[in-house]
Amino acid sequence: MLIVQKFGGTSVGDLERIQNVANRVSTTVKKGHDVVVVVSAMSGETNKLVGYAEHFSSNPSRVEMDMLLSSGERVTASLLSIALQEMGHKAVAMTGRKAGIVTDNHHTKARIEEIDPTTMQNAVKEGKIVVVAGFQGVNEDGDVTTLGRGGSDLSAVAIAGALQADLCEIYTDVSGIFTTDPRIEPKAKKLDKISYDEMLELASLGAKVLQNRSVELAKKLNVNLVTRTSFSDEEGTLITKEENIMEKPLVSGIALDRNQARISLLGVKDRPGIASDIFNKLAAAEVNVDMIIQNKAVDETTNIDFTVPVGDLHDAKAVVEEFVKNGEIQDESYNEDICKVSVVGVGMKSHAGVAAKAFSTMAQNNININMISTSEIKVSMVIDEKYAELAVRSLHDAYQLDK
Amino acid sequence: MLIVQKFGGTSVGDLERIQNVANRVSTTVKKGHDVVVVVSAMSGETNKLVGYAEHFSSNPSRVEMDMLLSSGERVTASLLSIALQEMGHKAVAMTGRKAGIVTDNHHTKARIEEIDPTTMQNAVKEGKIVVVAGFQGVNEDGDVTTLGRGGSDLSAVAIAGALQADLCEIYTDVSGIFTTDPRIEPKAKKLDKISYDEMLELASLGAKVLQNRSVELAKKLNVNLVTRTSFSDEEGTLITKEENIMEKPLVSGIALDRNQARISLLGVKDRPGIASDIFNKLAAAEVNVDMIIQNKAVDETTNIDFTVPVGDLHDAKAVVEEFVKNGEIQDESYNEDICKVSVVGVGMKSHAGVAAKAFSTMAQNNININMISTSEIKVSMVIDEKYAELAVRSLHDAYQLDK
Repeated sequence: MLIVQKFGGTSVGDLERIQNVANRVSTTVKKGHDVVVVVSAMSGETNKLVGYAEHFSSNPSRVEMDMLLSSGERVTASLLSIALQEMGHKAVAMTGRKAGIVTDNHHTKARIEEIDPTTMQNAVKEGKIVVVAGFQGVNEDGDVTTLGRGGSDLSAVAIAGALQADLCEIYTDVSGIFTTDPRIEPKAKKLDKISYDEMLELASLGAKVLQNRSVELAKKLNVNLVTRTSFSDEEGTLITKEENIMEKPLVSGIALDRNQARISLLGVKDRPGIASDIFNKLAAAEVNVDMIIQNKAVDETTNIDFTVPVGDLHDAKAVVEEFVKNGEIQDESYNEDICKVSVVGVGMKSHAGVAAKAFSTMAQNNININMISTSEIKVSMVIDEKYAELAVRSLHDAYQLDK
Repeated sequence: MLIVQKFGGTSVGDLERIQNVANRVSTTVKKGHDVVVVVSAMSGETNKLVGYAEHFSSNPSRVEMDMLLSSGERVTASLLSIALQEMGHKAVAMTGRKAGIVTDNHHTKARIEEIDPTTMQNAVKEGKIVVVAGFQGVNEDGDVTTLGRGGSDLSAVAIAGALQADLCEIYTDVSGIFTTDPRIEPKAKKLDKISYDEMLELASLGAKVLQNRSVELAKKLNVNLVTRTSFSDEEGTLITKEENIMEKPLVSGIALDRNQARISLLGVKDRPGIASDIFNKLAAAEVNVDMIIQNKAVDETTNIDFTVPVGDLHDAKAVVEEFVKNGEIQDESYNEDICKVSVVGVGMKSHAGVAAKAFSTMAQNNININMISTSEIKVSMVIDEKYAELAVRSLHDAYQLDK
C-alpha cells in the first residue's frame, strides 16, 4: 500500500517525539508499505514566529508572514528525514515547492490549486520515504504561500489524492472519532468507520479532531482518511465514502456545540422582503447564521429568531441595530446561554423515528427545545446551555451508542 | 548610491537588534540611497539547528542540512522586511532563490556560480528595500544549498557585484580593520582604507573580521567593501583596489597568528624527490603547509622544518610517521609553542628596508627568529610564542603605526 502519514505539531513537539515518529514510519515501511510523511512545525514554533512578527507590526505583510511561517515545517521535515536515514532508510525531505504543491495567491490562507506529484512519485519509485513540509506551497510566481489553520492536514489529504494513496493517516493526540465527547459521556465509544458527510456534521458541531476543509477535500478527492493517535498503536477511525460502510448505523454520534448565541428580533415590520434584507446584510457582514425560526405575532408584525456563532455576535448586533434605528424592528434580545445538540447518522435516511426519539428523550428529561433543524443525516436542537451534558448523555443512551 | 548592507548574527541577535538594523537601513534610505540588505540568522539559531540534527545523526545528510539551516535566514529576512514596512518603507524579503542566487551542488559549502539580479533590480526600481536571506542559494535542480561558514558575507559581496553596487557594507561587532589586535597593542589604530591584497594577508594571519573567501570575491568582482560596526555610527574601513588608495602606507598592519605548529624532520634521506614526496603526501592529506626551511646536515642527510595550522598537526604527523617507518626520516619533533608575526603593507613593493627594520626590531628585543618568509607585501617571522605580544608591540612601534 501507499500510505500518507501526517504528524501534527504535538507529535513532533520535541526531538524525542520526532524520533518516535521516525520509529513509527520505519515500522510502516518494514511492513512493506510505501510511505509519504507530511509534518507540521514543532508545537509552539509557529506561535513563536507569529509573536516575533507582531513585535514589529500589528498587521504584518502576508507575503513576509508566509516566508517566515513556512520555515518551521522545513526544520521538522529535514530532521525527520535525517532521523530516518540514520535508521538505515532511504529518505528525502521536500519543501512544498519540491513536492509540487501549487496554490493560489492568497498569502497566509492559500488554497491548493494543483499538485504535480512527479518528484514525489520518482522518489517513492526509488524506494525512498518522502518527508514533506506541510502547510506550504508556492504560488504561480514561485513565492512561498501557507495554507492557514489546519494547513498540514490539507497538505496531507491533497498529496494523498495526487498520489492516489490507499490511505491518509492523520496522527493527533486523540485516538479517533467518538460517538460523543468522552469528557461528557465516559461511555462514549470510538467509531471504526464514519462517512465523510457524518464527519462533516460532527466536526462543524464541535468534534474538533479534523477541520472541515480537510474532510471536504478528502471527500472530493475520494481519500480514505484515518485519524489516530501517535502516542499508541491503537487503531483509529476511518473516514470514507458511505458506500464503503456496509452496516450503516442509525445514529453514529451526538455532537454538542456550545459556541452558539441566539438572537431574537421582536416586532419585525411585516413588509415583503424584510427577512431577505436582514439576512443579506448579515451575510455581507460575514455573520454565519445557522438556524432560523419565524412566526407571526398577534399584531401585524413578525418575530424572527436565529443563531450565530458567539464570535459573530458583535457583528450581528451591529446589523440588527440598524434595523431597530430605522424602526423596522421593535426590539431585540440576545442569549448566549444556549447550546446545540445534534444527532448524526447516515442510517436516518432510510429509517423513520430517529427525530421523534430525540424529541421524546428531551421531553422525558424535562428539557425544553427552543429550536429544531434537520437534514438528511442529522437532527439539531437548540436548548438551554445548563442542560447540555444531560441532553448529550440521555441521547447517547437512547440510541444505545455505548453498545 | 546603491548600497548593499550585510548584518551578521550578532547584529540581528534579538528583536530589539533587528529593529536597530531597520532604523539604520531606514536612515541610509532617507539619505537618498537605494539599499539591498543581506541578513544572517539570529545568533545561536544555526548552532541550535545543527545541535538538533546531531541529536539524530553524527553525520547528517548534507542535502537535509541545507534545507534545515537555510530556515534561519528566512526568519530574519522576513522580520526585517516587516519592521521596515511598519516604518513606512516599501520593502520585500527574498530567499536566496528569489534573489536569483545559483550555486554549484556542494551542499553545506556551495559556491555561488551566478546571480540573476533581475528580480532584485526590478524591486529596487520600484523603490523597494530588498532584504535577502544570506548564506543560501539554489543549485541547478532548484534545491536549496548553503554557502558554509561566512556564507552571508559571500552572499552580500556576490550580490553587490551582480548589482554593480557602489558599496558593500559588512556590519559586525568590530568597528573596522586595525593596525594590529587592540587587545595586544592598545595604541592600535583603525585603518581608513586598505587594499584587497593587504587585507588577504592580514586576514589569513589572524585578523578575523572577514573571511578570505569574501575578500577574494570582492577583489575579483571589484566590490568596494566596508567593514564597520552595527552598534555605533563610527565609520569603518574601506577595502578596495590598490589604485583607489592614494597615499600608500609603507606598512598597514602587524598580524599575529598563534595557530601555527612547527614540524622538524631530522636526518631526511638525501635522495632526489624526497621533499616533493613528503609535501605531495601532506597536500593529499589536506594539510596546509605554510613556511618551509631546508638545510643540509653534516652527514649525507637533510633537515626540513615546516609550519602547519595546529588543527592540521594530527594529519601531518600521520604522514610524517610513514616516512619515519620507511627509514627515510631519522627523527621528527613538533613544537606548538610558536607563533607567526607578519608585517603587511603595499608600500613595501617600492621601498627597501622594511624587512631589515623588522629583523633589527626583533634583535633589539632579543627575540630569536626561527623562520622567515616574505612576499611582495609582507614579511612573516616565526618566533617563540612567549614573545608574541612583545614582538607585535615592538613592530607596531617601530613602523610608527600609532601615528
